[in-house]
Amino acid sequence: MGRPRTPLLDRRRIGAAALKLADGKGTLTIPALAKALGVAPSALYHHVSGRDEIISLMREELVLTTGGEKDWSQPWERGLEDWARTYLAAFAAHPGAVPLLATAPLTESFMHAMYEKVAELLITGGFAADQVMPVITVLESFILGSALDLVAPSVMLSDVARDTAPHLGTALDHTPTDHSRASRAFDIGLRALLTGFRDLLDQ
Amino acid sequence: MGRPRTPLLDRRRIGAAALKLADGKGTLTIPALAKALGVAPSALYHHVSGRDEIISLMREELVLTTGGEKDWSQPWERGLEDWARTYLAAFAAHPGAVPLLATAPLTESFMHAMYEKVAELLITGGFAADQVMPVITVLESFILGSALDLVAPSVMLSDVARDTAPHLGTALDHTPTDHSRASRAFDIGLRALLTGFRDLLDQ
Repeated sequence: MGRPRTPLLDRRRIGAAALKLADGKGTLTIPALAKALGVAPSALYHHVSGRDEIISLMREELVLTTGGEKDWSQPWERGLEDWARTYLAAFAAHPGAVPLLATAPLTESFMHAMYEKVAELLITGGFAADQVMPVITVLESFILGSALDLVAPSVMLSDVARDTAPHLGTALDHTPTDHSRASRAFDIGLRALLTGFRDLLDQ
Repeated sequence: MGRPRTPLLDRRRIGAAALKLADGKGTLTIPALAKALGVAPSALYHHVSGRDEIISLMREELVLTTGGEKDWSQPWERGLEDWARTYLAAFAAHPGAVPLLATAPLTESFMHAMYEKVAELLITGGFAADQVMPVITVLESFILGSALDLVAPSVMLSDVARDTAPHLGTALDHTPTDHSRASRAFDIGLRALLTGFRDLLDQ
């Protein structure tokens, strides 16, 4: 057999397969990824130097599939909200990969370019230099947690005994029992954070 | 050999081992848990009915090791802040278990009792019934994301090129490079959320 005309592996295929694997398993190993791609681990090493580069490819795939062009000339509240919603969509599509992606250092220049845009938005909006990274980090932590909540069951609290938990019972009576539970919570939280950030700015 | 005088397995040992396993592996299976405990899977089934009950034991272990008595008679901001800090400490001790614990339904009565306290705090504080679960969910999402950030490297953004990312560079110059990076972000985010929640109340 001759060589296939399209390469069996390319970097986007590796990134996509790694995302799928980490999403399903919560972890990522080279042997498991090679198996998922139907190749030997040695073949994988022809394309990537190791685990760190695979995580970069996963991030690149996320950005390519959900990124799109942003309007960074908006006021900071609007720009930050747009960014947060895109980010949530990306992570909610691959919740199992959240812990891995959230804890691996960000060395990729395309990620630095994205954070540069957000940092410029905040500094132009009036935030002090020492507030920029905390604001970004807080928003990211909220987004990562919300991505997990979006894939959690619509009804997280069930079989609550009304006689021993009357306040909780009342609260649950006023809580949607479908997908809108998590998306409504995200909207309220994003609004609360933007209000809190505005307050930081006014101090 | 006679029966050991102390049982090889008890429910707390199972919960603790499951937490440790999920923390390290990101996942939890009965065979892996039985192996970690040095017993056959069938022995495990003498103590628990299955995976759901093991997740309950993990939650119980978290509550037992980090819970402590809370002063629920404080104003809602103080009560919510105390609860958030305890919750963060519990999850930061077992970050790998976060996705599992965050997405499994909460059926345990001791968890319902805890949520009842928080719901009562918020309703007494003046929140509307339909705001209670969103406020709790938002805080939890932020806490879960922050727990992952606390175990992430102190320097998440490295090798940033100052010529192409000047705003990001300035922001990073004003960001701690040790453990305080994540804890300071948590403090700022918690403050921002409480401000935003206060604003909800005033509307």
